Amino acid sequence: MTLNPQFQQIGETFVKQYYLIFDGEREGREKLANFYHAELSLMSFEGVQVQGAVQILEKIKSLTFNKIARAITTVDCQPTFDGGVLVNILGQLKMDEDPVHGFSQTFVLKPMNDSFFIQHDSFRLVIHNN
Amino acid sequence: MTLNPQFQQIGETFVKQYYLIFDGEREGREKLANFYHAELSLMSFEGVQVQGAVQILEKIKSLTFNKIARAITTVDCQPTFDGGVLVNILGQLKMDEDPVHGFSQTFVLKPMNDSFFIQHDSFRLVIHNN
Repeated sequence: MTLNPQFQQIGETFVKQYYLIFDGEREGREKLANFYHAELSLMSFEGVQVQGAVQILEKIKSLTFNKIARAITTVDCQPTFDGGVLVNILGQLKMDEDPVHGFSQTFVLKPMNDSFFIQHDSFRLVIHNN
Repeated sequence: MTLNPQFQQIGETFVKQYYLIFDGEREGREKLANFYHAELSLMSFEGVQVQGAVQILEKIKSLTFNKIARAITTVDCQPTFDGGVLVNILGQLKMDEDPVHGFSQTFVLKPMNDSFFIQHDSFRLVIHNN
């Protein structure tokens, strides 16, 4: 069991890198596959669960927006006991001309070799009922 | 690496049990300590990080509300590769006479003996800027 003392910096750097690509040019989203493991990555996207980099990229590419604007409100990082990082993000996003939505996304970053991959990715829009 | 096929049921049952106690009588919140490990539990509460069951319970007991009403919107569960469960919850809560707030909470349940403890707990109110 090894807590990584750099967990905060690792989490925040990851968030910047990931959303920079996700929110960039539509063709560039292919590169997101590099963050995931061929088999050991699980994603829940609005309740739909997929496993593995290929299926996860397929899910991301199926999203039809062209432009996305994102504002991060909070990033909470915790070290995991295998040297990884749990990252919880709250923020707001606007896809194309849709209304602004709140969102919540959780990542678990798993150490591998000298880097990390996304072992868990769970995304939900926050729907306001009040 | 063992994915627990019962992950959905384990996560949902945990959510019910945990919030039943959290949202119950103020004195009863002491029992929440049983969900955490003496050392191997990490909590982030509105950005404040504490470790271990004693400190976590202290944090919970420092919350001054008497009554809380809670509505769960979504519970997303993923199996972790050690047989545990990642649980992401979105919902709304109302403490005493405060306005209704959205909230987001993430738990990582870690298997131990024939049960689970909360290894990670990350809580945030969702603040609407729009």
